[in-house]
Amino acid sequence: MTIASLAIDWGSTNRRVFALDSAGAVVETERDALGVLAMAGRDFAGEVAMLRARFGDVPVLIAGMAGSNRGWTDAGYVPVTAVAPASLAGLAAALCWVEPGRTAIIPGVSRQGGRCDVMRGEEVQFLGACAAGLVPADSLLCQPGTHAKWAVMKGGAITDFTTAVVGEVFAMLGKGGLLADGLDLPVQDGPAFRDGVLRGREGDLLSALFGARAALVLGERERTDQASYVSGLLIGADAAQRVAPGARVHVLADPALGALYLTALDVLGASGVLVDSHSAFMAGINAIRADITLGAAA
Amino acid sequence: MTIASLAIDWGSTNRRVFALDSAGAVVETERDALGVLAMAGRDFAGEVAMLRARFGDVPVLIAGMAGSNRGWTDAGYVPVTAVAPASLAGLAAALCWVEPGRTAIIPGVSRQGGRCDVMRGEEVQFLGACAAGLVPADSLLCQPGTHAKWAVMKGGAITDFTTAVVGEVFAMLGKGGLLADGLDLPVQDGPAFRDGVLRGREGDLLSALFGARAALVLGERERTDQASYVSGLLIGADAAQRVAPGARVHVLADPALGALYLTALDVLGASGVLVDSHSAFMAGINAIRADITLGAAA
Repeated sequence: MTIASLAIDWGSTNRRVFALDSAGAVVETERDALGVLAMAGRDFAGEVAMLRARFGDVPVLIAGMAGSNRGWTDAGYVPVTAVAPASLAGLAAALCWVEPGRTAIIPGVSRQGGRCDVMRGEEVQFLGACAAGLVPADSLLCQPGTHAKWAVMKGGAITDFTTAVVGEVFAMLGKGGLLADGLDLPVQDGPAFRDGVLRGREGDLLSALFGARAALVLGERERTDQASYVSGLLIGADAAQRVAPGARVHVLADPALGALYLTALDVLGASGVLVDSHSAFMAGINAIRADITLGAAA
Repeated sequence: MTIASLAIDWGSTNRRVFALDSAGAVVETERDALGVLAMAGRDFAGEVAMLRARFGDVPVLIAGMAGSNRGWTDAGYVPVTAVAPASLAGLAAALCWVEPGRTAIIPGVSRQGGRCDVMRGEEVQFLGACAAGLVPADSLLCQPGTHAKWAVMKGGAITDFTTAVVGEVFAMLGKGGLLADGLDLPVQDGPAFRDGVLRGREGDLLSALFGARAALVLGERERTDQASYVSGLLIGADAAQRVAPGARVHVLADPALGALYLTALDVLGASGVLVDSHSAFMAGINAIRADITLGAAA
């Protein structure tokens, strides 16, 4: 089957390449560790040329941290406000053309004035999930991870969003210091995780983290439960700020991490539904492709 | 003047030695970096023998992390509950005698059942501050730092306490990762610090930390203000959970860190008073000395 274009989800730590036919169907995918952090001193243009040498001399559409000031080039942000939400059409209109008509980077989305926030890459998935009907046009979406992203969707557009440093703080705690003990052990759903969610809900993370250590010292928690408890603490602290009891959240995540968020939502009296983030990404990419003229695909 | 006993505030990173006359007045003090973390592989008994060789063969009373399971020997904890508060007499009765009549370690204080917490060393200062009349017998005390300690005092005893990992999280954030940028610069009182306190008060630390980074990326905060803002965020997140508007807090700290907490309390509509922590420690030590029989001092 002929490859008509490439889409790249170029994040901080991973790069996913999707080879598409002229209808936007995925012909081939690959994933490698050539994220932006691994690109230090390497040439983005050269890497894209290597992809073209393998997949064909086709247009390339890029999303993610490759468009940051630590990436290929700063693709800027589309600002989001309650009265001017961010849409796929808005992203398409603000593309950053690295090579006119051939290679474009999708801008991120920013929130300014009062609380500041930014995202790059997740916006394509959030908007794509709505565009493809994977989630309702009015919904609350979550993509958990190193930086958990939450987006409020109205009419299929992003009206507000929040990032929480959940995975990054968990990783930092495990690197050393008082709280590292036991954090290298597996995280699993269970009573310790659920206890952590309830404590996280209280909004007093700095004392809850010390309390996690104190419970080990006092013999009130098994060391093998510590990583699960602290994970629950952080996920609960995040989710409780974003969801009200009774709320329904669509979670774009792999099954393992997604399951932990679904449990946390359940503990908080809310509910969650898993959504396939790759399908959401491709739906977003194809909507942007439909809106623009890509050289060879035109 | 004759040295009649030694008191050691033997913490994780520092050791402070106080040489006392028979009335408990401080004759000489010294401070070094031989905290418990630096004692790895060294002999606590040998270090105390070296102190005796210099100051005289006198009784030694030790407080702090030297009494933890990572220190000389585990001196245990005196549990605190609302109906059975922790007092200086309670600590004196539960001393851990390393050498009977000659060398004792003061136990820590623990809180169990529901929320777990522990402290070691600060209890002597908190109780001593009340015993010496440096603070009211019914008061809210705070000792900020790596692990900020808050104690609720009633009738001069500890009825409840909380530890928050304020300084430790600040240090972790500065070590690397997304949020490290600018955290090596000085923290100072000012609008950025105060803005941080207000954001920290909201109880959503995980998103506030990402927002701190986003504000830099979006050019909404100067890099030179970032450490002050993040410090305010953490101190505000801590203090807002502990104090109600109108509350008065007695802060046992050096003037620089103490001033930041006083500012944070002011922003939160509360107020703070600085208390000399060394005087508080000595008052606590002397009350325990008065309660026990120390060999050479008997």
